[in-house]
Amino acid sequence: GGRSLQPSRKWIRDVWEFAREDTDRVKFAFKVGLAVLLTALLILFRAPYEVFGTNIIWSIITVAIMFEYTVGATFNRGFNRALGSIVAGIFAIVAIQIGLSSGHIAEPYVIGLSIFLVGAATSFMKLLPSLVPYEYGFRVALFTYCLIVVSGYRMGNPIRTSMDRLYSIAIGGLIAVLVNVLIFPIWAGEQLHKELVACFSSVADSLEECVRKYLRDDGSGDAEFSKKVLDDFPDEPAFKKCRATLNTSAKLESLAVSANWEPPHGRFRHFFYPWSEYVKVGAVLRHCAYEVMALHGCLHSEIQAPYNLRCTFQPEILDATNQAAELIRSLAKDISNMSRRSLHTNLLKRVHSSTERLQRSIDVHSYLLTSSTHDTAERFCPPARLSNAPSLNLKDFSDKLTEAAAAAPVLRSESYHESMKRQQRRLHSWPSREVDDGFDVDGGGGGAEADGTPRMKALESTAALSLATFTSLLIEFVARLDHLVDAVDVLAKLAKFKEDQQGLK
Amino acid sequence: GGRSLQPSRKWIRDVWEFAREDTDRVKFAFKVGLAVLLTALLILFRAPYEVFGTNIIWSIITVAIMFEYTVGATFNRGFNRALGSIVAGIFAIVAIQIGLSSGHIAEPYVIGLSIFLVGAATSFMKLLPSLVPYEYGFRVALFTYCLIVVSGYRMGNPIRTSMDRLYSIAIGGLIAVLVNVLIFPIWAGEQLHKELVACFSSVADSLEECVRKYLRDDGSGDAEFSKKVLDDFPDEPAFKKCRATLNTSAKLESLAVSANWEPPHGRFRHFFYPWSEYVKVGAVLRHCAYEVMALHGCLHSEIQAPYNLRCTFQPEILDATNQAAELIRSLAKDISNMSRRSLHTNLLKRVHSSTERLQRSIDVHSYLLTSSTHDTAERFCPPARLSNAPSLNLKDFSDKLTEAAAAAPVLRSESYHESMKRQQRRLHSWPSREVDDGFDVDGGGGGAEADGTPRMKALESTAALSLATFTSLLIEFVARLDHLVDAVDVLAKLAKFKEDQQGLK
Repeated sequence: GGRSLQPSRKWIRDVWEFAREDTDRVKFAFKVGLAVLLTALLILFRAPYEVFGTNIIWSIITVAIMFEYTVGATFNRGFNRALGSIVAGIFAIVAIQIGLSSGHIAEPYVIGLSIFLVGAATSFMKLLPSLVPYEYGFRVALFTYCLIVVSGYRMGNPIRTSMDRLYSIAIGGLIAVLVNVLIFPIWAGEQLHKELVACFSSVADSLEECVRKYLRDDGSGDAEFSKKVLDDFPDEPAFKKCRATLNTSAKLESLAVSANWEPPHGRFRHFFYPWSEYVKVGAVLRHCAYEVMALHGCLHSEIQAPYNLRCTFQPEILDATNQAAELIRSLAKDISNMSRRSLHTNLLKRVHSSTERLQRSIDVHSYLLTSSTHDTAERFCPPARLSNAPSLNLKDFSDKLTEAAAAAPVLRSESYHESMKRQQRRLHSWPSREVDDGFDVDGGGGGAEADGTPRMKALESTAALSLATFTSLLIEFVARLDHLVDAVDVLAKLAKFKEDQQGLK
Repeated sequence: GGRSLQPSRKWIRDVWEFAREDTDRVKFAFKVGLAVLLTALLILFRAPYEVFGTNIIWSIITVAIMFEYTVGATFNRGFNRALGSIVAGIFAIVAIQIGLSSGHIAEPYVIGLSIFLVGAATSFMKLLPSLVPYEYGFRVALFTYCLIVVSGYRMGNPIRTSMDRLYSIAIGGLIAVLVNVLIFPIWAGEQLHKELVACFSSVADSLEECVRKYLRDDGSGDAEFSKKVLDDFPDEPAFKKCRATLNTSAKLESLAVSANWEPPHGRFRHFFYPWSEYVKVGAVLRHCAYEVMALHGCLHSEIQAPYNLRCTFQPEILDATNQAAELIRSLAKDISNMSRRSLHTNLLKRVHSSTERLQRSIDVHSYLLTSSTHDTAERFCPPARLSNAPSLNLKDFSDKLTEAAAAAPVLRSESYHESMKRQQRRLHSWPSREVDDGFDVDGGGGGAEADGTPRMKALESTAALSLATFTSLLIEFVARLDHLVDAVDVLAKLAKFKEDQQGLK
């Protein structure tokens, strides 16, 4: 029986890990249990039951339906339920009066017609884009209306029925809100805050990971993009997270909606805290993440710049990347600590100057990016470049670089032919399907490309230009950081982040 | 009072437009009204009311809560509600038996404890990622359990209570399902099908729009990226749609989940229709759309290749773009018609060969992309290029090109100095913040860039390389089309799309 236990044991371990990962989940579960128990006590004990009667059963339904994970979402849902119930109650009483005054025979027809109209109207209105957030309220209004009208018709005294129901719903709602707020409250604002900070660091991690892999990768593997387009890239853990941030917009928005319902709490101590700014910063960050996705596409593209060429610009690319990642992490830290340091201007300056250096370096060596790439790259690889590089603030990289320079010639002399062959295979692997068909679909156009050589050369040049693409995307990423810094500044101002004196020089 | 009527009139017109845009919305509203009315009749008429009693009120709640927009979603919600109710009922009866056997004094404690445990367990389980889709079922299970246990304790005969409740829920559910399926059914599968086709065309439109703007744009306006990062780009209607497709993943997934619940219907006539493949095709398409986003970023980047240079490669870029857009539209049409044409291989070949031509052209003119851009571009602009271009299948472009060639020299000679000035201003606008600070943050590094000239030149070269970036991204986009074609092929095979004889040569 040891084997059959394995899957269930694994499941238990998974659940345990899930609970330990965020203890709020366990707290939430116990809170729901407590809220339901408290409501049930109103019925289990004789005294309250005799006061409220069987209608008190509605308070249990209310608790079960209203209790949400965060305080804000519970408030939001409670508001929807309360407003829906009240509006439906008023409508129902009016409809019943009209039904009564229209006589005994007409009454069921009036009631039936009103139910049809209310059903159609609420269902249509909840589809309107501006009313979609109140979807639940319309649902509640519909069934409350039906219940009151129908039970009023069958049991008489509709006002009494609706008032009793309203009492029980109010009691259930009160218990749900009190338990949710007073016992280990889970604030949507806090969640939103953490979520945004996490997005920042996953973008920074993914950028670094992607660039590091681009510079390290010597062209082994990776030829099969087809299997990878929807893959999780198991050797790139940060990429998965970064891709996940692209889909956070709905989550951030719903958390911000919930957070708007929350009173000042914890670190968020003033009224009208600008939660919507979090969503905006998230959107700007996502626009940065699109560039990381494009960089990642470049990394896994089938047309690649030769490794030699990539390592020519290694120090500048690494420098710009590290500066950019540092800036993003510093922004994340500031949001996380709710502090406002003037450090960003300096960091931004540094990012720009290292990007500048990268641009200049590409300009100086731009002849490498055009034809006869390999030989030129051969001549101007790391050793030659070292003397050329402005090594003033590249101390931390010069070690790596010397290392690389020492290793590179050996690697090149040993496996030069092999790497060339691999390079050619990779170039040939694109265009992948049609390479054997001779490209004669447009009527045998162009005799020059019939023999493979000129096409080979064209691809070689494009391959070299793919390095230019990579750096351009990196530069575009840096350009977007300006707007990210601006967005965080606006957030810091509106949210009144405290000035951090440490940050000032 | 004419003025005060304006907003309400506008609102009514908006609602009218909303209803006309998709008449399914109105149908849905009337269907809900009908379903609620039918359920209410069970109570309004004396005969059924005397059979079922007051418990029939639960069927109204069931209809109001279960009636969803699509057939699949209604089935899904109904399944959740049914399973939740049944499981809760069984648990409740077991708990009541245990309570009864534990004696009169212990009974309320046993019931209270069981309510707490069930509340905590269901709440924790619905947080588990694998059980999140059944969130509603857990909610139903919780309140059904509480209701049966509590009302069983107070009113006795729990099995009778729960059976009555189950009957009423079943009646409500049946009415909801019958009305939803038999009267103007709105199928989730149909919606998913249309949604995916719409995503295809918005990607194609956005690609064409972006490239057309890139080639047409002479550098006017657009300097203020800051205002635009979150803007809707009002002059680019397709971009907005394309950006919207990036956020469709959740929508496609939920539609696919709903569609899996639907029986064969309409055009989707066999069992186990591969709805999940739609989600996969959507994911591959999104990966193509990321490249369009990057192209768009390139278009609005502050570093731009000179207009002259861009128009040098205009025919090849336009050709590749049009071929790619045509391929995407053809894929969309195939999915839309559920047909399988062998045309795609030809289209893909054509896309690849025109991309090939673009690559070759860039290789031939790659010296344009390096230093002293302007003068060279001047020399090699349209007139010179025309003789060079393989005009065999560029007939449709040659007209435009001749036009451009005729217009270009006039434009250039007239406003050459002005465009140069604008170009320089644009180059200077980046790096936007630090340009006055002298870049001395890293300790006065590098004396060469102290005077503006070399930096200017570096930026000019990078500006030219931005064209290489644009074309590389376009080529990467085309490379991803291979995978899109593959994904659509898999879908066509699994969904048994019919072979279209027209498509065969």
